[in-house]
Amino acid sequence: MKHATHISDLGPEVIEQILARAKEWKGQPHPKHLRDKILGMIFFNPSLRTRASFEAVMARGGGHAIVIEAGSGTWKLEDRVGAIMNADRPEHLKEAVPVMSRYVDVLAVRSFSRLTSDEDDNADAVLRSFQKYAAVPVVSMESAREHPCQGLADLMTIEECFGITKSLPVTLTWAPHIMPLPKAVPNSFLLTAAARGCDIRVAHPPGFELHDEIRAEAEALAKNAGVKISYFREQDSALTGARAIYAKAWGPATASRLSGESVTQHNDWMMTARQMNLAAPDAIFLHCLPVRRNVEVADEILDGRWSRVIDQAENRFHVQRALLDWILN
Amino acid sequence: MKHATHISDLGPEVIEQILARAKEWKGQPHPKHLRDKILGMIFFNPSLRTRASFEAVMARGGGHAIVIEAGSGTWKLEDRVGAIMNADRPEHLKEAVPVMSRYVDVLAVRSFSRLTSDEDDNADAVLRSFQKYAAVPVVSMESAREHPCQGLADLMTIEECFGITKSLPVTLTWAPHIMPLPKAVPNSFLLTAAARGCDIRVAHPPGFELHDEIRAEAEALAKNAGVKISYFREQDSALTGARAIYAKAWGPATASRLSGESVTQHNDWMMTARQMNLAAPDAIFLHCLPVRRNVEVADEILDGRWSRVIDQAENRFHVQRALLDWILN
Amino acid sequence: MKHATHISDLGPEVIEQILARAKEWKGQPHPKHLRDKILGMIFFNPSLRTRASFEAVMARGGGHAIVIEAGSGTWKLEDRVGAIMNADRPEHLKEAVPVMSRYVDVLAVRSFSRLTSDEDDNADAVLRSFQKYAAVPVVSMESAREHPCQGLADLMTIEECFGITKSLPVTLTWAPHIMPLPKAVPNSFLLTAAARGCDIRVAHPPGFELHDEIRAEAEALAKNAGVKISYFREQDSALTGARAIYAKAWGPATASRLSGESVTQHNDWMMTARQMNLAAPDAIFLHCLPVRRNVEVADEILDGRWSRVIDQAENRFHVQRALLDWILN
Repeated sequence: MKHATHISDLGPEVIEQILARAKEWKGQPHPKHLRDKILGMIFFNPSLRTRASFEAVMARGGGHAIVIEAGSGTWKLEDRVGAIMNADRPEHLKEAVPVMSRYVDVLAVRSFSRLTSDEDDNADAVLRSFQKYAAVPVVSMESAREHPCQGLADLMTIEECFGITKSLPVTLTWAPHIMPLPKAVPNSFLLTAAARGCDIRVAHPPGFELHDEIRAEAEALAKNAGVKISYFREQDSALTGARAIYAKAWGPATASRLSGESVTQHNDWMMTARQMNLAAPDAIFLHCLPVRRNVEVADEILDGRWSRVIDQAENRFHVQRALLDWILN
Repeated sequence: MKHATHISDLGPEVIEQILARAKEWKGQPHPKHLRDKILGMIFFNPSLRTRASFEAVMARGGGHAIVIEAGSGTWKLEDRVGAIMNADRPEHLKEAVPVMSRYVDVLAVRSFSRLTSDEDDNADAVLRSFQKYAAVPVVSMESAREHPCQGLADLMTIEECFGITKSLPVTLTWAPHIMPLPKAVPNSFLLTAAARGCDIRVAHPPGFELHDEIRAEAEALAKNAGVKISYFREQDSALTGARAIYAKAWGPATASRLSGESVTQHNDWMMTARQMNLAAPDAIFLHCLPVRRNVEVADEILDGRWSRVIDQAENRFHVQRALLDWILN
Repeated sequence: MKHATHISDLGPEVIEQILARAKEWKGQPHPKHLRDKILGMIFFNPSLRTRASFEAVMARGGGHAIVIEAGSGTWKLEDRVGAIMNADRPEHLKEAVPVMSRYVDVLAVRSFSRLTSDEDDNADAVLRSFQKYAAVPVVSMESAREHPCQGLADLMTIEECFGITKSLPVTLTWAPHIMPLPKAVPNSFLLTAAARGCDIRVAHPPGFELHDEIRAEAEALAKNAGVKISYFREQDSALTGARAIYAKAWGPATASRLSGESVTQHNDWMMTARQMNLAAPDAIFLHCLPVRRNVEVADEILDGRWSRVIDQAENRFHVQRALLDWILN
């Protein structure tokens, strides 16, 4: 049974295959490749793009999506094995997941980081419980560790602009925010760009390191593709000459957070035209959305010639369609 | 690209065409005229009829509706241009609307009046932002200024009862309530009835005037149709001899509200059998629903021979079906 | 017009027919028997299984389900006849139900017990209002009095394991909980098992009696089937030799509740392997879910060889499909 919970479930070959299919189908009439299929979507956290794009994928493909918001209109769900369930979570994943498996053909789950520690994110308990208890394929709609559909859409967008990604200089830069955010999106961009052989630069202030295990996994993918990943503690050098710049806010590394690093410092890391002008003349700007304008990124970028964020969001539809096709057909 | 955000987007000829189509299709098997179409519905406010009727329109027509409740299970949306987005609205309409446009064929929006001023209602900032940023047609499911689908259903119901509406005496009467309500429904009834050439009487207590711009727009439509609109500050004269009576609570005009007018005064404006008996013997009673029984309207009307409120609600389905057909086909 | 609000709407013959159809279709490709049909689902309370299984039934059958959560994204609904509606419920069932009837082919309603009294549960005001005001068939998705779809799924599961249910010893045992729960599920199991001719034992602590009218109705069904129902005030005797054991928490009988009976007493009634070992060697364990592990039922049962709770939940899909087929075709 195929799952798509993490980039490692796919690997470079399947990623290539999914991106090829996504691009092939983008300009064509919608195939009815999901006829009579049901996708069960379970959200522990809010969503706009993910929900609408997956629901559109199912409808366009001839299938149907069931949307469940856990804890809003349904029961809160317990994931701890052996729990004495005498508090506010009246249903265990051990029941909810197998039951949902009986009604649908594939289960998609959104379960954000609890922002307790990088180790907790990496363990990805809720999503891994779904995978363990489900009798059908499980797809991540962003978990504590990764957001693989976003990573796929990111790379599809870059490839649409530049054709080939092998050795393409791309930069992932940290951005300021009003609160600590999960690292699933930067993790997935790093892993997917490495799998596609980009020349990757990652810039963030000291204390905002990505987790060791993610970096090692990306390193192995980059090595396999014959490219390298460079890390920078200041922004300008990392941006210089880049063809694609991906800005994203994320929280401090565990140890740093404990030592008081704050996301509201480093406001000079907000992306403006000045920084974009350091990049290659044809550089594009990416962000997974939602974006806090004039906090993470200035209006002049989002409303300017660099931005591909709307295409990038549209591509969520295309890669998810290809992903479900790979899983179900 | 056709939009249906305000009655002025349609005009008398398209209104006539939509009502004719709605009545023609009402008694027939459901046409599959929306096959493979997706309607994206975005609600900033609650809904029962609107949501269920639009979802039924899409399902009956062979298409699909995606329902998004902004701020519940999804992000709160910012609409102010240039905002520094450091508060509780993490996504801007500048992103959300173009992105949704990529997933669907038509966008429908519900965004009620903020009840700050008649000028603010008239500016209709949220809905006009959708129209500005969308790459697909936009349909109002009630905005600060108007509720055009309701106006269409109102007139369809009157035409079903009386055939012709030219010079038909119809009365729009203010009704008491427990709190100030938006004016979108009375505005739309006034505009649509004027476009259809009704002889319109509007009754409300002093201080509850509809906005100048709405009245001027209605006046122009009435003049074009060769009929007139009369305003009354007491109820009985306006009701006498009317064939259709539309009761609706709405808040005071801006200036009046500032000067302390209260919707809980004028309880004698609650519609009862006494008032209905002033109307023509075959008079019908209309209300857009939801209605607060025995506050706005007495049980004896809603449960009596005059009421057409259920047919009127059903007609939401029929006019919306014809409206989407006009937009998409 | 056929309704399915209570087991008495069906009776033994229709129950037999529905279970036969459910089992017949279980192993076959999904029939498209609900093509172009719309189910309107109105929830006054949370749901996971019910919502997902009914939505899957409609999608698998070629139809569509509209999901309305009353009071969340829609108006709160008033059910009291003659109410002066000046408080927090702006819409009356007298409008909401006929209106919904105009958009859909069948209405399904979830309206839990208010936990005020057994008499209030038995009167089942909200569901009976739906039945009264609806112009289309009404299906219960659990009301104050009963949960007939659950009862059907319970008996289907037993019949799948043992073939024949005539005189099969089955035990319904009360279970401890952290708060008083409705009696709709034990009521429906009792009534449906009686209609199918099981030899029924009911065990609960003193003070937790099921309502007289339910017991009398079950007694009549049992008599008609030529079997009997026995009541026990301790658990072990009721479990001895049983082939199917159904555990469920429910609140005290009205009089007892007033006299201070508590669901958090009697923790020794929690089901463990010790109790299952009193049953027949091939005994199965049932629960309607959600279940509080290690409060109502120990992990060792739910994770062990006895449990059929996932099959039982799956069977909700199958019996609901057969039920809607009986109603609509």
